[in-house]
Amino acid sequence: MSPSEAIAYSTEIARIPQPAKYIFVAGVGAVGETFLRQVAGNASCRVIGLCNSRHVRWLNPEEEPYDDRSGDLNLWKGEQKNWNDIIRKLANYEAGCVIFVDTSGSREVAELYATLLSLGIHVVTPSKIANTRSQGQFDELHELARRNDTEFRYETNVGAGLPVIRTVKSLIESGDEILEITGVLSGTMTYLFSQLDKGEPFSKAVIKARSLGYAEPDPRDDLSGEDVARKFLILARICGLRLESSDIKVESLIPPSLKDVDASDFLERLHEADEEWKERMEPVLSRGSTLRYEGVLKNGTVRVGLVEVPKGSPIGLLTGTTNLIQIKSRRYKDQPLIIQGPGAGKEVTAAGVLADVLKIR
Amino acid sequence: MSPSEAIAYSTEIARIPQPAKYIFVAGVGAVGETFLRQVAGNASCRVIGLCNSRHVRWLNPEEEPYDDRSGDLNLWKGEQKNWNDIIRKLANYEAGCVIFVDTSGSREVAELYATLLSLGIHVVTPSKIANTRSQGQFDELHELARRNDTEFRYETNVGAGLPVIRTVKSLIESGDEILEITGVLSGTMTYLFSQLDKGEPFSKAVIKARSLGYAEPDPRDDLSGEDVARKFLILARICGLRLESSDIKVESLIPPSLKDVDASDFLERLHEADEEWKERMEPVLSRGSTLRYEGVLKNGTVRVGLVEVPKGSPIGLLTGTTNLIQIKSRRYKDQPLIIQGPGAGKEVTAAGVLADVLKIR
Repeated sequence: MSPSEAIAYSTEIARIPQPAKYIFVAGVGAVGETFLRQVAGNASCRVIGLCNSRHVRWLNPEEEPYDDRSGDLNLWKGEQKNWNDIIRKLANYEAGCVIFVDTSGSREVAELYATLLSLGIHVVTPSKIANTRSQGQFDELHELARRNDTEFRYETNVGAGLPVIRTVKSLIESGDEILEITGVLSGTMTYLFSQLDKGEPFSKAVIKARSLGYAEPDPRDDLSGEDVARKFLILARICGLRLESSDIKVESLIPPSLKDVDASDFLERLHEADEEWKERMEPVLSRGSTLRYEGVLKNGTVRVGLVEVPKGSPIGLLTGTTNLIQIKSRRYKDQPLIIQGPGAGKEVTAAGVLADVLKIR
Repeated sequence: MSPSEAIAYSTEIARIPQPAKYIFVAGVGAVGETFLRQVAGNASCRVIGLCNSRHVRWLNPEEEPYDDRSGDLNLWKGEQKNWNDIIRKLANYEAGCVIFVDTSGSREVAELYATLLSLGIHVVTPSKIANTRSQGQFDELHELARRNDTEFRYETNVGAGLPVIRTVKSLIESGDEILEITGVLSGTMTYLFSQLDKGEPFSKAVIKARSLGYAEPDPRDDLSGEDVARKFLILARICGLRLESSDIKVESLIPPSLKDVDASDFLERLHEADEEWKERMEPVLSRGSTLRYEGVLKNGTVRVGLVEVPKGSPIGLLTGTTNLIQIKSRRYKDQPLIIQGPGAGKEVTAAGVLADVLKIR
């Protein structure tokens, strides 16, 4: 983008000076690396260290995580990673000044949040792991943050950079009651069904989604619907509902005969499901409708699965990785509050993580 | 609504305990009164006083602004209002603890913000007056808040309770660059053109909008487009653009011959414009299109006026008081970020004001 496209450069109003925030980044995959590049431009933040699954590197003031010449992350310059050492170093900073940013997607790292929060270290993450364990663990973690006056922020758990979680929280805080949340929260599924609309066989659409990077290497991780279910579990808990992931009704799109085969066999044999999907789509298309994978949180229960919608409806018109979330509350009842936009991608996810970091007081 | 419709009652997570906030409410019209009823349910806030254009009433702890029996606001019990006395009383509280909520819509009250902010009193308002004066006055007010570590919040200036301003600010703060904001921000205009779609004469549609409470008593206040222009002026300034209201190109829908007549003459003679509007709509409708009143902020300029859009497009499908705001930024370029929902009404506006109050640190 050429700078002239931007509406304006002065962001004077937005840049309220704040005390320095010391950032430690765990995980330097796509989102972590993008976050590091984005945070470099923010005067109120200083990255003090970063790690991947094997190495940790501590930065001196003024030192950038990138190599001056190559622009690469220099993690090979780091030491062997040891979580006890890392936590001990972070705990040396004044309480409330350190923000632990977890982009690792690792279960091991999520297990550290409780310790970090109780040491006065804030946690920000796009990972859904900590929020989708048992209700008891969820309560415990949030209670721990409250008691220690630390913040646990996870806006990007749902819709990446879209303002979904904070809008739901803001409605509840101001005394509104959420009546219903419906949403299309899987770009992979939306891509899949917009291809089936065009008459493409199921297997071809899945393989294409995979090669475009929309679907996971093993597309069953998307087709199971579990990722959408996890997002709705988090939304439900934010609304104050107490439930376990097993309470959510999830419609899996994995052909039963291919549930337990190897990943490569799965891709090879996926065409076996084509005929069945063709037969399922035909009557839908003949009615001027299409299918979308939707979640519904209503009357204390969550259901995620396929719904038939008119092709010309807002949901039927969705393509690509666009998410659409519709919130009905006591105040937004007749006309719901709708948020729509790309709900995946490293740029918008990292930006959402950074926005969380900047909101920490 | 019966309580059973709500997803859940426990809002445990959302209710982070906070220090008490002392609220003074100026203006007890529709929004002010609704706000008072909403804030009564919030444990972190205490209303210490309220005023209308003539009286002020101070409340003892535990005292409610409403009469126990009638449920009415008891402002007639108050003293004669004197701003100097009010400000002196508010300044007696510890700096940063008092929030002045202005729902009066009065220019006189907006003139007090500078004094209040410099005395350590936060200001929250749905009124656009202070933000739409000269760029110099705008800068001065925001700088004053910053320098005194007080907050000036006005989320409801655009889209009432919809998260528009805070989403734009959050994008900018996290280093994004806004490229374009387009929006339908006038419920009156949307109602008007959805009636013209149905073949209703212009004059009838305007008079109906007025009787339904969508349009102002003198509908020229809506038809001028100035209200939409003011919202875009604020959005533009938040994006860092420096401009005056006179820099905005506004298409007025007031028939030139009726610009300067009395309000009652205006309504009586409005049918004179029906033929012209019929001629204007016919070719539009024959193309399967309709008209919507839209604002566009792009390339450093703002333009608000009519655009022709396909009837089946998201904007063409809008009805009632629904607002639709589309944000394109460097990160949200191919797929914009869209926020849609009711952009007017006392319940959602008051709730947006309360959300602002609760966000003050």
